[in-house]
Amino acid sequence: MTAQGVFITIEGIEGAGKSTAVSCVADWFSGRGREVLRTREPGGTPVAEDIRRILLTATEEELAEPTELLLMFAARAQHVARGIRPALDSGRVVVCDRFTDSSRAYQGAGRGIDPVVIESLASYAEQGVRPDLTLLLDLPVGIGIARAAARRGMIAKDRFEREAHEFFGRVRAGFLAIAEAHPRRVRVIDAAEPLDRVRLQIHAALAARFDEGEVGVHGGR
Amino acid sequence: MTAQGVFITIEGIEGAGKSTAVSCVADWFSGRGREVLRTREPGGTPVAEDIRRILLTATEEELAEPTELLLMFAARAQHVARGIRPALDSGRVVVCDRFTDSSRAYQGAGRGIDPVVIESLASYAEQGVRPDLTLLLDLPVGIGIARAAARRGMIAKDRFEREAHEFFGRVRAGFLAIAEAHPRRVRVIDAAEPLDRVRLQIHAALAARFDEGEVGVHGGR
Ligand SMILES: Nc1ncnc2c1ncn2[C@@H]1O[C@H](COP(=O)(O)OP(=O)(O)O)[C@@H](O)[C@H]1O
Ligand SMILES: Nc1ncnc2c1ncn2[C@@H]1O[C@H](COP(=O)(O)OP(=O)(O)O)[C@@H](O)[C@H]1O
Ligand SMILES: [Mg+2]
Ligand SMILES: [Mg+2]
Repeated sequence: MTAQGVFITIEGIEGAGKSTAVSCVADWFSGRGREVLRTREPGGTPVAEDIRRILLTATEEELAEPTELLLMFAARAQHVARGIRPALDSGRVVVCDRFTDSSRAYQGAGRGIDPVVIESLASYAEQGVRPDLTLLLDLPVGIGIARAAARRGMIAKDRFEREAHEFFGRVRAGFLAIAEAHPRRVRVIDAAEPLDRVRLQIHAALAARFDEGEVGVHGGR
Repeated sequence: MTAQGVFITIEGIEGAGKSTAVSCVADWFSGRGREVLRTREPGGTPVAEDIRRILLTATEEELAEPTELLLMFAARAQHVARGIRPALDSGRVVVCDRFTDSSRAYQGAGRGIDPVVIESLASYAEQGVRPDLTLLLDLPVGIGIARAAARRGMIAKDRFEREAHEFFGRVRAGFLAIAEAHPRRVRVIDAAEPLDRVRLQIHAALAARFDEGEVGVHGGR
């Protein structure tokens, strides 16, 4: 009997520990014999990564606000159609660093774009593919910025990472509002804790949801 | 007194003579002392041309339908915000090879995408910038395909030009339906005629609209 696909998204502000959490989730499922696709947004397929490059490369010609939003959802539509959905259909576990909640939090709560516009683009781009579980790595903005700054010698600053402290405050609040509105889908992880305690929280969230055979691991969806 | 901006779009199927018509319109306005911006869609700014490249380059990873539509409107949003609107604001005449009517005709009538989705993306991407006049170069599909084929030795076939005869039939009908619905904005040009007669038709359409001082040429909008 083929396992059912499982779609897990990891959300949070910069420096929250998303990339670290993706590995933790992927290892947990691999340890249970599941095939795992690790991916990220924006990006995740060659075409979507091309779009990502346009989104994250600062040029003299500033991206207009609607351009940014439309590109984000274009990348998502491609990632869903050519990456995520085929993997789910073949029974894999997809672990994705950011998904639509990031658009809601960054473009919506952060930049003030109309939620009606965002939801209508979301339902068009997602084509019915929705996360089974979202882990929201929550922490005070200052800690996230400090962690991200510590990485800064290694990777180029991108447009988003130049955004201000105040902006990330709105984004964090946006994420928490999503968690409150979708308590079954979204689990809030206290990401200010040391890494091994964050891992324990993630394992607990996964076990609560998947070791009970509720979704997927035993093909029981 | 600064002249008012004028926004003219040129529409039609492949081989209709759009690029030729852009020159004709641009020359007409230049001859009247106007500063003209010639541009095209998808594209028209460096970022929008980057998006165009993703749209028109055939790769192993086929573009999903929503990706194509969202990229098209992302390019349009950028072109409007960073190319067309600034030019209109500074009093120029903008002559654009394709605009939103091409999305309506190709993605809507041609590919069957829901017109409600297209109109909602259009109003988001256009940001209130609408053509003052659209010249629809209309001709039987077979003639257009033959003219486009004659060029084919020179430029690479792109994804759209590989589409079938039947498809262009739907696109042509889509364009004509737009013209019927917007008789004031859209002028239909019989593009099957020889080039010098097409030029006369275009000059007549421009004179009827702009030499009467109705819009723009004398700052009279
Ligand atoms: N719980 C934690 N405590 C301390 N440092 C952490 C923790 N989680 C991640 N980090 C470190 O913080 C930095 C950012 O983590 P990362 O996973 O890249 O975050 P994100 O992908 O959300 O931006 C990395 O250097 C990472 O090793
Ligand atoms: N009225 C016309 N009669 C004959 N040939 C034409 C006419 N208009 C354009 N052409 C030729 O047909 C080809 C396609 O014209 P072009 O302006 O590039 O069309 P489009 O931009 O709509 O694809 C070109 O080689 C052009 O010189
Ligand atoms: Mg990361
Ligand atoms: Mg042309």
